[in-house]
Amino acid sequence: METLSDIGEDSLIQRLVADLPQLPSVIVGPGDDCAVVKGTTEGHHLLLKTDAVVEGVHFLRDAPPHLIGRKALARAISDIGAMGGIPLHALVTLVLPADLDVAFVGGLYQGMRELADEFGVSIVGGETTRGLQIVISVTLTGEVEADRQVLRSTAREGDAIMVTGRLGGSIKGHHFTFRPRLQEARWLAQYHWPNAMMDLSDGLGKDLLRLAAASGLDFVIEPGALPCNAGCTAAQAWGDGEDYELLFMIADETELMSDWAQSFPEVSLTKIGNMVATGQGSVPDFASTGWDPFVKDGGSA
Amino acid sequence: METLSDIGEDSLIQRLVADLPQLPSVIVGPGDDCAVVKGTTEGHHLLLKTDAVVEGVHFLRDAPPHLIGRKALARAISDIGAMGGIPLHALVTLVLPADLDVAFVGGLYQGMRELADEFGVSIVGGETTRGLQIVISVTLTGEVEADRQVLRSTAREGDAIMVTGRLGGSIKGHHFTFRPRLQEARWLAQYHWPNAMMDLSDGLGKDLLRLAAASGLDFVIEPGALPCNAGCTAAQAWGDGEDYELLFMIADETELMSDWAQSFPEVSLTKIGNMVATGQGSVPDFASTGWDPFVKDGGSA
Repeated sequence: METLSDIGEDSLIQRLVADLPQLPSVIVGPGDDCAVVKGTTEGHHLLLKTDAVVEGVHFLRDAPPHLIGRKALARAISDIGAMGGIPLHALVTLVLPADLDVAFVGGLYQGMRELADEFGVSIVGGETTRGLQIVISVTLTGEVEADRQVLRSTAREGDAIMVTGRLGGSIKGHHFTFRPRLQEARWLAQYHWPNAMMDLSDGLGKDLLRLAAASGLDFVIEPGALPCNAGCTAAQAWGDGEDYELLFMIADETELMSDWAQSFPEVSLTKIGNMVATGQGSVPDFASTGWDPFVKDGGSA
Repeated sequence: METLSDIGEDSLIQRLVADLPQLPSVIVGPGDDCAVVKGTTEGHHLLLKTDAVVEGVHFLRDAPPHLIGRKALARAISDIGAMGGIPLHALVTLVLPADLDVAFVGGLYQGMRELADEFGVSIVGGETTRGLQIVISVTLTGEVEADRQVLRSTAREGDAIMVTGRLGGSIKGHHFTFRPRLQEARWLAQYHWPNAMMDLSDGLGKDLLRLAAASGLDFVIEPGALPCNAGCTAAQAWGDGEDYELLFMIADETELMSDWAQSFPEVSLTKIGNMVATGQGSVPDFASTGWDPFVKDGGSA
């Protein structure tokens, strides 16, 4: 018998979604930060994202419940942003042990409500059911101007590889308190439309590999250029998950860098390498290759 | 400490969604079969539904995986139908134990894919993560003509209460093999637009109470009129969950009954009572009041 821990998440998803039939209304199906479909206001596409956090995997029950709820929604907002879009409507599914304190569940929801208010999101429905562990599954819709959406699959050879903020060590707290880079992503889509973009959820090393594969390219990274959080090594910046920073590609970063510094003086922006043709790339020699939910310890450093 | 099993599902949801702020684009927020929002093709509304099935609650692991996957999607299609709409795009979140057989997961997906094909649904994305038990969370979008949507909250005093098919005993197999009443619901919305409609998922007794509460009415049921499945008592037809039949209200059922018999000769349609003003109703004297995920044995008969 072949188990999920034998093959890992990416291989599983590849098998599941192979040859999935798609309606003509589907612009981008499985494989990007969000699905993109026709059918929202004139000149816009509808974005669809679903994301789940699981007790024992993404959080522990002794964490403050409002931070757990906040995180569940923040992850989905981050993905809508990574397409260049704005979030609109959320559906929230709660799987909850029957002996859970009602006040704890109220806390979960309060964290989501506060973040929803902050980002202009309406929680329009959801469902609750019983389970052995807490699972919060959030679906979020959004919209993006049809000529401004940013995919993973459209990076070009020679593009500069850019990363916002600093990476690594998210487990110390950032994974609960991060503010989705929605404003920054919208600004990029409007003023310096990147060739490709995604948010960093499973670690730079793993996510960059995914984006490069989607674009049919390789990459060259300058390990010394990685923007590391205080106390983190470059290997951690490369391998740790849950940074929720933006990873994007742009042909020429010169003008962007000065505009960015004026618009977001408190958020660093770093060029970490370049996209290159297949076979011309090199993977930095770090021990870790990112986080996988099905592999023990996630393969993380 | 007050636990979820103390207060039950309906009370929990009421507390969570009280005073949820809603964007102007939200037409129907929490509380109906689906949320309804603006922003799809001209003259239509967008429907948003999320629904989860959990191992040990909605299915056991020794069930055929394709039936488990089929059920997860079928439940959501049933809800889109109950609004008078057609389903469009699905997102699928799988929470899976790491030691699960890859072939089992393939079976889950195969069951969903086949039903998606049958109902013209595209699976456009999703996510997989690790957990202690299998959870399949499906989000489904749909659309409905803006002048044809059918809510729970718009039943009128005097309406006939109608039920499709036969009720009770779903646990014997129907809960896996039911065909969502999408075609029937669309036909109703087009030709005999009901005043109110929902699908029966938690048992007639519980779901009718919800619809009546949403409409600000009571009801009178003729217990002898309940369409019971073979081998089921009226109490089971009233209390058992997972029928996935349509419950709807219409001012005069006479013309409908003859049209229905011609269009759907193999599906029974039964008048089971009438909606009445608050304080004029009576709840049948059955032991059971439907299924609740947080209450031991679900309160079910």
